Amino acid sequence: MEKSRIVEELKPFFEPKGVAIIGATDKKGKVGNVIFENFKVNKEKGIFKGNIYPVNPKLTEIEGVKCYPSIKDVPEDADLAVISIPAKFVPATMKDIAEKGIKSVIIITGGFGELGEEGKRMEQEILQIARENGIRIVGPNCVGVYVPETGVDTVFLPETKMDRPETGAIAFVTQSGAFAAAMLDWAAMANIGIGKMVSYGNKLDVDDADLMEYFMYDDQIRVITFYIEGVKDGRKFIETARKVTPHKPIIALKSGRTEYGAKAASSHTGSLAGADTIYDAVFKQTGILRAEDFEHMFDMAKAFAKCKLPKGDRIGIITDGGGAGVMASDAVAKFGLKMAELSEETLKYMKEKFPPHAVAGNPTDVVGDTDAQRYKIAIEAFVNDPNVDVIVVITLFQVPLLDEMELIDILAEYAKKSDKPIIAVAMGGKKTEYYAKILEDKGVPVYLTPERGVRAAAALVQYVKYLEKLKE
Amino acid sequence: MEKSRIVEELKPFFEPKGVAIIGATDKKGKVGNVIFENFKVNKEKGIFKGNIYPVNPKLTEIEGVKCYPSIKDVPEDADLAVISIPAKFVPATMKDIAEKGIKSVIIITGGFGELGEEGKRMEQEILQIARENGIRIVGPNCVGVYVPETGVDTVFLPETKMDRPETGAIAFVTQSGAFAAAMLDWAAMANIGIGKMVSYGNKLDVDDADLMEYFMYDDQIRVITFYIEGVKDGRKFIETARKVTPHKPIIALKSGRTEYGAKAASSHTGSLAGADTIYDAVFKQTGILRAEDFEHMFDMAKAFAKCKLPKGDRIGIITDGGGAGVMASDAVAKFGLKMAELSEETLKYMKEKFPPHAVAGNPTDVVGDTDAQRYKIAIEAFVNDPNVDVIVVITLFQVPLLDEMELIDILAEYAKKSDKPIIAVAMGGKKTEYYAKILEDKGVPVYLTPERGVRAAAALVQYVKYLEKLKE
Repeated sequence: MEKSRIVEELKPFFEPKGVAIIGATDKKGKVGNVIFENFKVNKEKGIFKGNIYPVNPKLTEIEGVKCYPSIKDVPEDADLAVISIPAKFVPATMKDIAEKGIKSVIIITGGFGELGEEGKRMEQEILQIARENGIRIVGPNCVGVYVPETGVDTVFLPETKMDRPETGAIAFVTQSGAFAAAMLDWAAMANIGIGKMVSYGNKLDVDDADLMEYFMYDDQIRVITFYIEGVKDGRKFIETARKVTPHKPIIALKSGRTEYGAKAASSHTGSLAGADTIYDAVFKQTGILRAEDFEHMFDMAKAFAKCKLPKGDRIGIITDGGGAGVMASDAVAKFGLKMAELSEETLKYMKEKFPPHAVAGNPTDVVGDTDAQRYKIAIEAFVNDPNVDVIVVITLFQVPLLDEMELIDILAEYAKKSDKPIIAVAMGGKKTEYYAKILEDKGVPVYLTPERGVRAAAALVQYVKYLEKLKE
Repeated sequence: MEKSRIVEELKPFFEPKGVAIIGATDKKGKVGNVIFENFKVNKEKGIFKGNIYPVNPKLTEIEGVKCYPSIKDVPEDADLAVISIPAKFVPATMKDIAEKGIKSVIIITGGFGELGEEGKRMEQEILQIARENGIRIVGPNCVGVYVPETGVDTVFLPETKMDRPETGAIAFVTQSGAFAAAMLDWAAMANIGIGKMVSYGNKLDVDDADLMEYFMYDDQIRVITFYIEGVKDGRKFIETARKVTPHKPIIALKSGRTEYGAKAASSHTGSLAGADTIYDAVFKQTGILRAEDFEHMFDMAKAFAKCKLPKGDRIGIITDGGGAGVMASDAVAKFGLKMAELSEETLKYMKEKFPPHAVAGNPTDVVGDTDAQRYKIAIEAFVNDPNVDVIVVITLFQVPLLDEMELIDILAEYAKKSDKPIIAVAMGGKKTEYYAKILEDKGVPVYLTPERGVRAAAALVQYVKYLEKLKE
């Protein structure tokens, strides 16, 4: 699909001029009320810039906002319809939407294909109307779209149930609605910036391939993540992935890997999960990085969102705790990376500047009485050493003489001016979490364990190797 | 070693009648000051019941507490000495301690065996004095002991640098001091209760075997965890582990697994890490559970601290999110467990009570519009089904109609009255964290991801299988 078309088709989902909320209601806690409230609050905050048109034949206004009896009555600038009415009314409403000329529809309503024949028949009717009228659909049976920057938020769980993450460079696409909610809630706590989230549920129309292509053209997005249980159109998925991965990394968490999982997936979304080995092969061929679980997915995504790409697979480790250095070294081997062999100059430089009990090497151990300046010596040396491709800096902030903010500024400075990726590892509790957030906001990803930090480095390396293979 | 002897020898480390702090000082932030403050504050809070005797020839009192010029001058009830003076003064001080008749010594001071020949010579001198006088030593080069229940706390990092976890049923032993600090800090945030922590540093005397034996006799401790880089006396370790594991589970995180890691370990603690395959074999033979990383270690430990042991390996999964159920099913296969085949009665019971769109099966999906009572139906059914050995309950607290506290009470009630282990999984953010803490305090371990929850179940099963094999 050419750029202009996919962007034109999907853009209203992410930045509508006017959103019609079909099934909006004043009954607190109801889906149609929460969605309406989300848009209204975001408009009041100045985040959502479009107009809001609640549609409900039984009401003339909701909380001071004019309510329309039918979608046919809303003003002409409406370019996105969000549907939250019982399934049986949806086909007729789709006809009205088509007549109105709205081309983007999010169907939140469940109770279609996942519940049997009659639901599937209705889905086909809806799809036919869409096809005949050039309408794109997200859903049905989904929580829809979340875009913190533009204030689009159809996630029908109120703030009392679920936090919202800040914006960022990660796109997150998921089939499962409950997973979408849990993930957004978690991402908010874990300081993972989500630029755009789409939960597409039954995936009647807009699918993984459409979304990855859209995000390829989306300047806000640096890395695309998917949670999928099964792909319907394998050819389209493969072709699109091949097209996208040379430009942006794609990370997939595919469940239903095992016989047990596939059986559970089949009774969940009704789609056959397919042999996992096929997915594995497809991911490898198309350069998609596969995640073991959702922590792994966002660990990788965070690295791509914040780091430069490395030139190779040689890891340099700096630590203030010997044990953590050992764990990181183990992880380097486990994930198939190499320990960098530091140049003579690097070792000499550090030895001259270090006190005698600090260990210049790989790992370099600045030891427990370190201050931020000793870290700086090591980071400077590693940045300048041509034998080091990725720098993993373990900072146990607990050590007594370390000025945390001074170290954070040093790390942020080198991450910015060096062309090498710098990954931080900070094990600890609430104070560590506090400093980790500051460091991440300054552009350095932080991981709780050496293993997870090195695993994220491995993802950067894996992607670079894929890109290099393409050039051959 | 007979019970009376090991308990008598090590007890003063954990509940001293009087603690002499050699090197106590009034200089804020210094190691000798932080340790003194820890005991003083805990005494003021009524947690530490013993007496505190700072020893420093240059001072007559520290913050109103009488200071003694020499260890020889402290009152007779002192049964624990904590040493924080430069290494070169330690041998002479050990002679005074021997003369005084104190039998338990924590040597915080570093700069011994890890720094070369002279340090090693001093260590041997200290060890000889200890052996000749029946003194047991923790350290040197360590952060010592932390026991929240008795107020013993030689961790020389102030509260401004590091939080302390609450008490609990887990014993945690580590060579690495920085790791000890980072772990305690993390455990405080992660709501992991630590009954007793020992960081033994250079392990001159008291070692892993001594500690696991002591903890076997310690009623507070239900599970023993170790972070080790290398074992010095292999035979003693194996014999003791064999003796302990039939009574209490032991979990080990052993780093230096790979060539890279072993090399890093050797320059860290100077001890040869040894071929990892040997450790693997030893752990298997002795029934020690091996952790992949520290999250894995405490994930397992939490399950042992809170759960009953299962009768078998058949897992039943209850979820309110289909996707999470699929992930859990995958994990069941991945970790070599079995999906329970529910009995006809169980399925019939749930189908009769469930609305039609909820899915009775394994996984049972109570779906996104669930309330707590629908969960109760499923939990009741799984508890009564003889085909289910472990129950994994996934609760996405975000779903709109779920009363979180009602579900928490139901889970806690069944975990108490059923003889099956119940493991909860809750994916989410700050609100989830809040509810997870309440649920854990009521005795049900909670995990962030389905994968981690099932992995913890696998640890319970692995331990039970070891116990069964012993009976053959």
